Amino acid sequence: MERTTTVMLGENIGKTVSIAGTVDIRRDHGKLVFLDIRDRSGKVQAVCLPNHPEALATAQTLRSEWVVRIEGVVNERPEKMRTEGTNGNIELEATTITVLAQAQELPFEKDTAVNLDTYLDYLPLTLRSEKARAVFRVQAEIVNAYRGFLDLQGFTEFQAPKLIGDDAEGGANVFSVPYFNDKTAHLGTSPQFYKQIMVGVLERVYAIGNVYRAEKHSTTRHLNEYTSMDIEMGFIEDHRDLMELETRLMHALINQLKMNCAGEFKLLGATLPTAPDTFPVLKLREALELIYQETGRDNRGEPDLEPEDERWLSEWAAKEKGSDFIFITHYPVAKRPMYTMEDESDPGYTKSFDLLFRGVEITTGGQRRHNYDNLVEGIKSKGLDPEKFSYYLQAFKYGMPPHGGWGMGLERLTQKMLGLGNVKEATLFPRDINRIDQLLSTPSENEA
Amino acid sequence: MERTTTVMLGENIGKTVSIAGTVDIRRDHGKLVFLDIRDRSGKVQAVCLPNHPEALATAQTLRSEWVVRIEGVVNERPEKMRTEGTNGNIELEATTITVLAQAQELPFEKDTAVNLDTYLDYLPLTLRSEKARAVFRVQAEIVNAYRGFLDLQGFTEFQAPKLIGDDAEGGANVFSVPYFNDKTAHLGTSPQFYKQIMVGVLERVYAIGNVYRAEKHSTTRHLNEYTSMDIEMGFIEDHRDLMELETRLMHALINQLKMNCAGEFKLLGATLPTAPDTFPVLKLREALELIYQETGRDNRGEPDLEPEDERWLSEWAAKEKGSDFIFITHYPVAKRPMYTMEDESDPGYTKSFDLLFRGVEITTGGQRRHNYDNLVEGIKSKGLDPEKFSYYLQAFKYGMPPHGGWGMGLERLTQKMLGLGNVKEATLFPRDINRIDQLLSTPSENEA
Repeated sequence: MERTTTVMLGENIGKTVSIAGTVDIRRDHGKLVFLDIRDRSGKVQAVCLPNHPEALATAQTLRSEWVVRIEGVVNERPEKMRTEGTNGNIELEATTITVLAQAQELPFEKDTAVNLDTYLDYLPLTLRSEKARAVFRVQAEIVNAYRGFLDLQGFTEFQAPKLIGDDAEGGANVFSVPYFNDKTAHLGTSPQFYKQIMVGVLERVYAIGNVYRAEKHSTTRHLNEYTSMDIEMGFIEDHRDLMELETRLMHALINQLKMNCAGEFKLLGATLPTAPDTFPVLKLREALELIYQETGRDNRGEPDLEPEDERWLSEWAAKEKGSDFIFITHYPVAKRPMYTMEDESDPGYTKSFDLLFRGVEITTGGQRRHNYDNLVEGIKSKGLDPEKFSYYLQAFKYGMPPHGGWGMGLERLTQKMLGLGNVKEATLFPRDINRIDQLLSTPSENEA
Repeated sequence: MERTTTVMLGENIGKTVSIAGTVDIRRDHGKLVFLDIRDRSGKVQAVCLPNHPEALATAQTLRSEWVVRIEGVVNERPEKMRTEGTNGNIELEATTITVLAQAQELPFEKDTAVNLDTYLDYLPLTLRSEKARAVFRVQAEIVNAYRGFLDLQGFTEFQAPKLIGDDAEGGANVFSVPYFNDKTAHLGTSPQFYKQIMVGVLERVYAIGNVYRAEKHSTTRHLNEYTSMDIEMGFIEDHRDLMELETRLMHALINQLKMNCAGEFKLLGATLPTAPDTFPVLKLREALELIYQETGRDNRGEPDLEPEDERWLSEWAAKEKGSDFIFITHYPVAKRPMYTMEDESDPGYTKSFDLLFRGVEITTGGQRRHNYDNLVEGIKSKGLDPEKFSYYLQAFKYGMPPHGGWGMGLERLTQKMLGLGNVKEATLFPRDINRIDQLLSTPSENEA
C-alpha cells in the first residue's frame, strides 16, 4: 500500500492507510500500546489493541527510535481525548506493524535537556528532538525567504569559491591549506572580492555559503565555520539604498516565517521580531554619546561597539523605537576594510553600517570604493600592496558601477530569531576551537 | 529621476527615462554616436545626436566598459532599422549622459575568443561577455529549479560542514587544513555522512555547496573545488525510487530552463536535453556487454566505465532510445563505498547507479546500508576501522530508515547542458592544480 504522510491523515478518517516513520515514544499499558510516530511531515498517535494481536505483540517490542511501517485505520478520537495541534483529533488503529530498523538503547531519554557538550557529542541523536528539528526547519525557511526576496529584486545567485590564494588582506585569522606545487591556499573569510567582481558581470548578486574564521576564542556567538549570506548590488546612490533594501528583506523574512513557521516558533517559545517600517539609525558617534548620556559608560571615541554596547542599543531601540533592529552607521575609515567608501560629507567616517538585532550585530555592510584610483589609495592607506590585489583590481580597472553590499551570518540570525542561548544551537554541526564533530583533544590518536 | 531598467523601456515609448549601465560598444559616426548599454536586465541602443551637443560630446569620450547614467527619450526605431530581440524596435535618444565610472583601455576586444588561460587570467573582464553572463544565469536557474523541485517533494535544505575531522575513508585526494591544538582537519569531499545523519532527523534533505578533491590531474572535466548538489531520502524501497525521483527532477529542470532561459540557450547555440518519460537503464555488465557486441571493445569484467564507454553509451541512448540520459546500475560491491547496499537479488553487486548525460557521469547515487551491523560489516570489508566512524555510526545505532541519495556536480551539469567544451567554462572561478585565480607559478614550474 502506498505510504501516506502523517500530515495527510486528517483527510483519511475512516480509511485504511499505511504510514512509515520513527517511534518517538511508546506508552505501554499492557493490553494497549500507544505509539507516537513521527515522519517528516509531523506526528500521529497509533494505538495497538488486542483485536490485532500480532500488531500489539510487535508494538510491545518497540522502543524509541525504532523505524516502522504501520498499516491501520484512521479513527477520530473521543472528544475528551483530543489534544491540540495537527492530528490531535485522530489516532491510527494499527492492524499491521513492520519493523524497518531497530535502535539500540538510547544513552539518555529523548528530549531531555543535556549540557551543550553532550548535545554535541550525540548530534546524530539529539538533532532528532522536536526542538532541534524545529530550529533547522526555521533555518531552512530563513534561507528560502532570503533567496526568494533577492530573486524578486533581480539578483542572481552565484557560487563563490572558498579556496583562495594569497591572504591579501593579511588577516591573522585565516586557515591555510597546503596546495599543489608547494603553494599554500587559504579558506575564504568572505566572498567579498568575488561578489564585487560579479557586480561588474551581473550587477546584483548574492552568494550563500560557508566562510571560515580561524579565531581562537570560543564564545556563545563565534564559530570557525559559518554560513554567510552575502549580497552585492550595483548602481546604488549610497549605503542608505542597502539599508533600505535590507529593511524590506527583513520584513519579507518575518512575513514568511509568520506564515510558514508559526508552529516552530510556538514550540520554541520564540517571538517574531518587531520591525517598524523603517529601523532606527544612529551614527556610531551618536550611539556612543547616547550610551554615555544614558548610562555614564564612556566609550566615546572608540572605533567600534563592544558587545555590551550592542545589547544596550538593542534594548534602547526596542523600548524607545519599538524595533528589534537598529542600524549603526559611519564607522571610522581606520576601522573598516580598505574597500569601504569614505563619506565625503563626513570625512574620516565611512558609508558603512552594521545591523544590530536583539543585542548582536548580524550584518556588516556598506558602499565600496568603485573608482580604481580611489581603491588603490584605500589599499595603500592600510599599508597593503596593491600588486597583491591585481586580480581583484581588474574589475575596477575595467569599469565598475557605484556599488555596495553586506554579509549576514545565517546561524547568528537563526539564533537571535529563535532566542537560543548559543549560536552552536543554531548550527547543525558546529566547528570550534575544540571540536569538529567530536572533541579534538580527547583520544591521543587524533594527533595528525 | 528614478532609474528604469532596460527591459522596461518598451513600455515607455515616447517617455523620458533614466537608465544606468555599462557601455558595451560605442559606434562613433562623428555627428552621431551609437552606444549599446547593458544592465542586469538586458541592453538597449542609445543614440546621441547633434541636437544634444553636451550628450554627444560626452558620448564621444566613452569607451567600452565605462559606466554611465543616461537620460533620454524612448523612440520607436524606423521599420528598417529594427533588429530581433528585446528593445530591437526602440532606441533611447540621449539628452544627458553622466559618467559614473571610467574604464582603462581593455587588454583585448570584448567578446573576442581568447584561449582558456587568457580567459581565466582576465575573468573580472571576460565574465562580462554576453556568453559568459548567459552561462552563469543558466547555472543560477539550474540551482533554483533543483531546489524548487525538492522543496515541493518535502525536502529540507541544510548547511553541511566542509571542514571535517579525520579523513575516515582514507582517500588520498583530500586537502588537509592545519587546525587548532596541533590537529589536522580536512576539506570534505562530499557531505555524505552528514546528509545520512540528517535523514534520521528530517527524512528528506538536500545540501548544495562546495566539495573538494585534491586530484592532481587537470582535464576538461575535473575541478579541485566544485559545487555538489546532494540529496538524501528516507523510506525508499530501493535505488529505483531515487532514479525515478531524479528523472522527474530532470524533467522539472528542463521545463524551467525552457521557460526562463530560452534566450540564453539560443545565444549559446545550446539545445535542451531530450528526456523521455523514463530514461534507459542498463546494469554495468549489460552496458559493457553491449559495448563489446557493438564495437568489439572488450571491457567486460571491468568494475567501472571508462570515459570512452560513457560517451559511447550516451550516444547509443540518444540514437536508440531517444534519450540524452541513461542510468547505469549495479556497480560491483568492491568498487563502491562501504555504505553502499548490496543487491540481495544480485550478490556482489550494489543498488547503486550513475546517471550519464551527454557523454559524462553527472550523478552517483544509490541505496545505503541502514542496518547498523550491516554497515559495520561494510566498513570492515573495506579494511577500515569502525571506531573511526563512531560519530557517524550513532545515526545507525539509534535507528535509521531505509534510505539513499545522490550527488550531482553543478558545474558538470551546466557544462553539458550548454555544450561547453571545458567544465572550467561552467565554473565562475575555477581552481585547478595550477591555478587559484592566477596561475600559481610560471608555466614551466607547473608540472606536478
